[in-house]
Amino acid sequence: MLNKEFLIDYRIYYEDTDAGGVVYYANYLKFFERARTEFLRSLNIFQSTLIKELNLIFVVKKCEIEYKNPTKLDNLVNIKTIISEIGAASIKMHQEMFCEEKLLNVLDVEIVCVDRISMKPKRIPSEILEKIK
Amino acid sequence: MLNKEFLIDYRIYYEDTDAGGVVYYANYLKFFERARTEFLRSLNIFQSTLIKELNLIFVVKKCEIEYKNPTKLDNLVNIKTIISEIGAASIKMHQEMFCEEKLLNVLDVEIVCVDRISMKPKRIPSEILEKIK
Amino acid sequence: MLNKEFLIDYRIYYEDTDAGGVVYYANYLKFFERARTEFLRSLNIFQSTLIKELNLIFVVKKCEIEYKNPTKLDNLVNIKTIISEIGAASIKMHQEMFCEEKLLNVLDVEIVCVDRISMKPKRIPSEILEKIK
Amino acid sequence: MLNKEFLIDYRIYYEDTDAGGVVYYANYLKFFERARTEFLRSLNIFQSTLIKELNLIFVVKKCEIEYKNPTKLDNLVNIKTIISEIGAASIKMHQEMFCEEKLLNVLDVEIVCVDRISMKPKRIPSEILEKIK
Repeated sequence: MLNKEFLIDYRIYYEDTDAGGVVYYANYLKFFERARTEFLRSLNIFQSTLIKELNLIFVVKKCEIEYKNPTKLDNLVNIKTIISEIGAASIKMHQEMFCEEKLLNVLDVEIVCVDRISMKPKRIPSEILEKIK
Repeated sequence: MLNKEFLIDYRIYYEDTDAGGVVYYANYLKFFERARTEFLRSLNIFQSTLIKELNLIFVVKKCEIEYKNPTKLDNLVNIKTIISEIGAASIKMHQEMFCEEKLLNVLDVEIVCVDRISMKPKRIPSEILEKIK
Repeated sequence: MLNKEFLIDYRIYYEDTDAGGVVYYANYLKFFERARTEFLRSLNIFQSTLIKELNLIFVVKKCEIEYKNPTKLDNLVNIKTIISEIGAASIKMHQEMFCEEKLLNVLDVEIVCVDRISMKPKRIPSEILEKIK
Repeated sequence: MLNKEFLIDYRIYYEDTDAGGVVYYANYLKFFERARTEFLRSLNIFQSTLIKELNLIFVVKKCEIEYKNPTKLDNLVNIKTIISEIGAASIKMHQEMFCEEKLLNVLDVEIVCVDRISMKPKRIPSEILEKIK
């Protein structure tokens, strides 16, 4: 059963927008990362603990993002995150952002578990895998 | 009665930190601005409406920030915002950020109401003033 | 002849890094955008003029980014940008970031020319096309 | 002789602006920090070396910034940095940002040399002091 789903809302502030009047394209990735982090937190996986205790970090390996509709200051956006694939050292997630039912953008992201110092891929610890699956 | 107070919490994400391992010094100002925006929202003042209907923006005129303690990834910070002075075209606020009761930093900020095009100071509309006071 | 190429260097500052000790994944997109903007500027295309005179903005429609190697504080990165395809209202670019000859990441990006207000796609003005081709 | 002065230019990109059409207030602090870093680099002081070899970081203790004029996309800003005071563990700098001779904002900043782990103040190493003075 890989289709765990997680929902979260964020407000758009001035810091997120640019002179085009809408959210700056790179800043959407910040919201998506907050959503992934809260997803993991909801499963009792804490990234700061992973670093401290196991010297492991999840890093982003690949992103494919399609921008369908822009969004503006003061809007409330809703992010849906689904785990789409779990490998030995990597996780793929599919994420969608909405504003009042309108699809804003879609992200497919692959994150890899790496050693903090060497930055080499490491097997995801089994206790983490159990929480995710 | 100028001591309206507003409290809000934010989580520290990777985007907020830097290679020093703590929150990047400029990013604290983003949290403080979110808190001011939510303070205004709690008083039914919406900045996007101000722009659209009255062509007015609040811009920051002056900041004095003292960094007392750093904070890290995954921490939850609490921001307290107090309106300390209200002028014809400007508002002064005092803001404090805490993490588990420890004071992280203190900001004194002056914001000015300006015309969006000319960027010249404008009187704060009386319906806004009433909500703030 | 679509293979115009543009090269530019950027320094990594604290603001670009995160608590993992390397550049934050969304921040690479900022460097890539600066490079595209300087590429256009080198062809005498100024985005602020496009907005003011023609009410046109280039917005990002799609990004595919692969992170191959991380990079750190104080490093100097080199970005290579190539225009890979030109359509009536859109441009595709291929961008690569290096640090001392090592490939850090690769971006394929599609940008679309839109009307600033309606956000609807618009034909790229012919004087812009001539400069790009 | 404490009045060493350093000048540097930066371009304003979309990432720096917000929906108000001008540079976002916290982002000015990023430019000022880049300028301080380049100032130190011009004196052969490298922050990444300081961390690696001596476990020391310079952190910001206090900022006082006054925003006098906004600036826009595509503008070129000039930053002037002066060391105004040197203490045993801290340095005060005065920084001014201009755009075509117009003063945009003024920052007085105090940075402190701290141990990377304990975050406690440490004497600035004498070889650093000699380069600064």
